[in-house]
Amino acid sequence: MSLAESRAREGGQEPGTGSPVRGRPRSEAVERSIIEGMMTLLEDGVPLAELSIERVARTAGVGKATIYRRWSGKEELFVDVVRAAEPPDPVLPGTSVRDDLVALLESLRRRGLMRRSSAILHNVHAQMKSSPKIWAAYHAVVIEPRRRTTFEVLRRGRENGELRADLDIELVSDLFVGPMLVRTVMRPDAALDEGLAEHIVDTVLAGLRPDDA
Amino acid sequence: MSLAESRAREGGQEPGTGSPVRGRPRSEAVERSIIEGMMTLLEDGVPLAELSIERVARTAGVGKATIYRRWSGKEELFVDVVRAAEPPDPVLPGTSVRDDLVALLESLRRRGLMRRSSAILHNVHAQMKSSPKIWAAYHAVVIEPRRRTTFEVLRRGRENGELRADLDIELVSDLFVGPMLVRTVMRPDAALDEGLAEHIVDTVLAGLRPDDA
Repeated sequence: MSLAESRAREGGQEPGTGSPVRGRPRSEAVERSIIEGMMTLLEDGVPLAELSIERVARTAGVGKATIYRRWSGKEELFVDVVRAAEPPDPVLPGTSVRDDLVALLESLRRRGLMRRSSAILHNVHAQMKSSPKIWAAYHAVVIEPRRRTTFEVLRRGRENGELRADLDIELVSDLFVGPMLVRTVMRPDAALDEGLAEHIVDTVLAGLRPDDA
Repeated sequence: MSLAESRAREGGQEPGTGSPVRGRPRSEAVERSIIEGMMTLLEDGVPLAELSIERVARTAGVGKATIYRRWSGKEELFVDVVRAAEPPDPVLPGTSVRDDLVALLESLRRRGLMRRSSAILHNVHAQMKSSPKIWAAYHAVVIEPRRRTTFEVLRRGRENGELRADLDIELVSDLFVGPMLVRTVMRPDAALDEGLAEHIVDTVLAGLRPDDA
């Protein structure tokens, strides 16, 4: 659920549209046009620092108050714009902890590939990292929930015996996610071949020592 | 050997100082004062973009030509300033591949801790990342040699039987380095406790499955 959606659920439908059931679609269309308006400005090369809510409102054809009813400021709105541009988080197969980890890492890999090929996503991430306030918002809204999902998968593995019972969940999460992130985020020229997610998950699960060691 | 040192070896001693043997110490003192001059400017909060070789020369009390004899431009000089501010790369114990990997990761951990506690290092790294040219220079001079060292250690492990013979060296390097880097570089509030290097190395070597699985 996006920030905008959660806000809509909390009763943020357009005033005067009657019941929430009738209000939802109209409200979602407005949100979409606001997000698309900001995206258009970013694609036109307007730097985030110069991007005011007033300008987004003008581009989207809505009033400033309509935006402020949904987002507390441009930082929160920006995070929803980034989320709208990225592939959604994966549906976990649930067949095994191994398969769920592969799905999580495969989604990181795809997101990394997309960021390499999409100028706007690349640009948006660079701007995000240079603004501590927006980076914190992105972290809270996107990265933290994703980490919590990974922790849940790993805890399940510890309980069902796929993973050793003495493992530190947070460390193990970094053992899987870290190798993918150094390639997607820190080394923009690193290989992100198909099969990389499986390769990382299976190698970390099995360990590196010879079978007879 | 730093860029400046390698340059000195290639015959970059001060003109008129006679033989390279007599020239070295004087040359090194000059290099140190140039590096310290640039460091002083950075500590005073001068942004890299406004930092000219002329200004560094004035601060260090040398002529511009003296700097250009040693560095091709401020990007190369800046990389040597960062290296001078960071702890040197570790001496590997060589007792086992496991111990060498622990030493390599421990040095990443210490560098990460130092970057958190030193405002100037933090600042310098942030500026470096926002300049693709300097980042590329830092990558070539600092990160690539460090990766090559890690690859050599891992190859030795594959040869001496500490590691499985079928492992992909580059992937395995990321399996060890990635978890440390997500904590030092990407999550500035992540735990970097003593013992983390051993913990990562031993867990990745052993794998995550229960012994009887």
